[in-house]
Amino acid sequence: MKIKQSKKSLVRPVRKPKHTLSAKQLAIGLQNNDRHSLARLITLVESTRSTDQQKAWSAIQSCTKRASKSIRIGITGPPGVGKSTFIESFGLHILNQGHKVAVLAIDPSSTLSGGSILGDKTRMPNLSAHSSAFIRPSPSGGSLGGVAGQTPQVIQLCELAGYDVILVETVGVGQSETAVHAMTDFFLLLALAGSGDELQGMKRGIMEMADAVLVTKADGDNIKRANLAKAQINSALHLFPVSKSGWIPKAECVSAYESKGISQAWQMIEAYRAQTSKSGFFSQKRERQVQWFFDQVLHFEIVRNTEKKRGFQSAYDKILRRVQSGKLSVKAGVSKLLHKG
Amino acid sequence: MKIKQSKKSLVRPVRKPKHTLSAKQLAIGLQNNDRHSLARLITLVESTRSTDQQKAWSAIQSCTKRASKSIRIGITGPPGVGKSTFIESFGLHILNQGHKVAVLAIDPSSTLSGGSILGDKTRMPNLSAHSSAFIRPSPSGGSLGGVAGQTPQVIQLCELAGYDVILVETVGVGQSETAVHAMTDFFLLLALAGSGDELQGMKRGIMEMADAVLVTKADGDNIKRANLAKAQINSALHLFPVSKSGWIPKAECVSAYESKGISQAWQMIEAYRAQTSKSGFFSQKRERQVQWFFDQVLHFEIVRNTEKKRGFQSAYDKILRRVQSGKLSVKAGVSKLLHKG
Repeated sequence: MKIKQSKKSLVRPVRKPKHTLSAKQLAIGLQNNDRHSLARLITLVESTRSTDQQKAWSAIQSCTKRASKSIRIGITGPPGVGKSTFIESFGLHILNQGHKVAVLAIDPSSTLSGGSILGDKTRMPNLSAHSSAFIRPSPSGGSLGGVAGQTPQVIQLCELAGYDVILVETVGVGQSETAVHAMTDFFLLLALAGSGDELQGMKRGIMEMADAVLVTKADGDNIKRANLAKAQINSALHLFPVSKSGWIPKAECVSAYESKGISQAWQMIEAYRAQTSKSGFFSQKRERQVQWFFDQVLHFEIVRNTEKKRGFQSAYDKILRRVQSGKLSVKAGVSKLLHKG
Repeated sequence: MKIKQSKKSLVRPVRKPKHTLSAKQLAIGLQNNDRHSLARLITLVESTRSTDQQKAWSAIQSCTKRASKSIRIGITGPPGVGKSTFIESFGLHILNQGHKVAVLAIDPSSTLSGGSILGDKTRMPNLSAHSSAFIRPSPSGGSLGGVAGQTPQVIQLCELAGYDVILVETVGVGQSETAVHAMTDFFLLLALAGSGDELQGMKRGIMEMADAVLVTKADGDNIKRANLAKAQINSALHLFPVSKSGWIPKAECVSAYESKGISQAWQMIEAYRAQTSKSGFFSQKRERQVQWFFDQVLHFEIVRNTEKKRGFQSAYDKILRRVQSGKLSVKAGVSKLLHKG
């Protein structure tokens, strides 16, 4: 079917010409909740070409509407915990409450292959087919580097496009959780019932960041173990000092399979929003999110400015060779390079 | 027992006075394989005080002996895979071959509490009691930030103290694996026999980095599942392009409990060293390790130099507030700050 190029097509551009749309046109599309404009802008944000990024920034800058009141929820948990199944079920519940849901998946584990093998349509078939849901893997790294990458900007784009519940999903343990924690309002940890000592050690650092822990797969034969794990986690959570938010994190059981505990989880998050909005903590945390991203971009730009300086690269090569041959220590090499450059 | 302060005590200082030892004295202790000097220097390296760090760098600089020929082995695997048990068994085997073994554990999961709950003496009772072994958790982050922290420098200190096998252990999936991969010669992935799909997705990015995969707990009832997992991993490994090292990674079964596959694993690593030393890849990789650490320190120093400039902090505060209030985009704020500062 051929679509006539009319004014309307600026608002809902067809797939083909969107690559040539201007920043302004993309901004109009974005604010009219056009998913293709959103997808295109995210691609520009994630591009390594600075002209692409510049275009995305100008589009954001030219948005006149303010983003709707949103909530950003970080979701993490170990492999096998049933993250996709939970998000599918949880996302559909939120959609049924009249919200628009965006799911951004950060996968830092695959830097070489560039992502998980399983696609989002396989992982979350019903959610990905829903017209009010938007699912997108967010490559970590990219031009900005680091685990965070451009995700905070992608969150902002989704909010400008009318998505008011943003789920930021990450895998496993490690640095990515710290980044997701820094860019979200509420941090949800999914846990699996298992032997007692699995709750110790490794997960402690992540448990300290959690605003809630949901023990998944609490159905069938597994209910007893799940309840035991819930009790164990609840007592572990009491060991941590009370968060600045005043919110007391707690553990609950969920079963995505039996749709059990899903609505309660959403109610808990709404209670969190109400309580922390009232106390002012919610907006303070948003300010810290901005500062965190600002620092990421700032550090990246500072390094790039230095590296662009005349003569830097040849001095770098020369000094690095001396460090590699053991004639200079790393520290002495860096000092030499910076006092020269 | 009171130890007389003599010249000998500089080489093997007693615990108390070592805090006041000079960089030179610490360097002498280090090269005489004194563990207290090593421990003290690591503490200085990890300190956030720049005078402490300066002292550690001067000690390294004043070392006249070159470090012995070493091998740096990165070890990772998901929680529950039996990493500590494997390292205990593997480490003791290597000690019996006449080597000195250092184990550095990187735990990025706990940024708030600063480490795993279980201590190293509990995790590896026999290894930690051995006089030729040195075990130390290496906090990620610290003054340098990032997952790498100061670990490459700690590796160097261990090598100067005569440890010729360095095991760098990390937990879970994520960014820490990339860092450990970047600072080691051989990357060992431990895997647990499980359902087939657990080998997909999450672990793929890490499997691509592995020089060998060891399926743990291949004993008792678990042997059949372990062999199946080994076969699955071996066919998965064939999907990846051949590494620049020319080395073909493969999967094997191990049982720390039955001491099975432990000596074979060490033989494999010795074969890797022989093959890559001959081809020149080993020393090329060492050069890349140096470059990687050099870049980390360089970027850190570049940012710090900018932040130290006069007027930077007040301009930063002013611009950040405007970004937080939504009057400026993050990108525009950063540009403004850097063109002013």
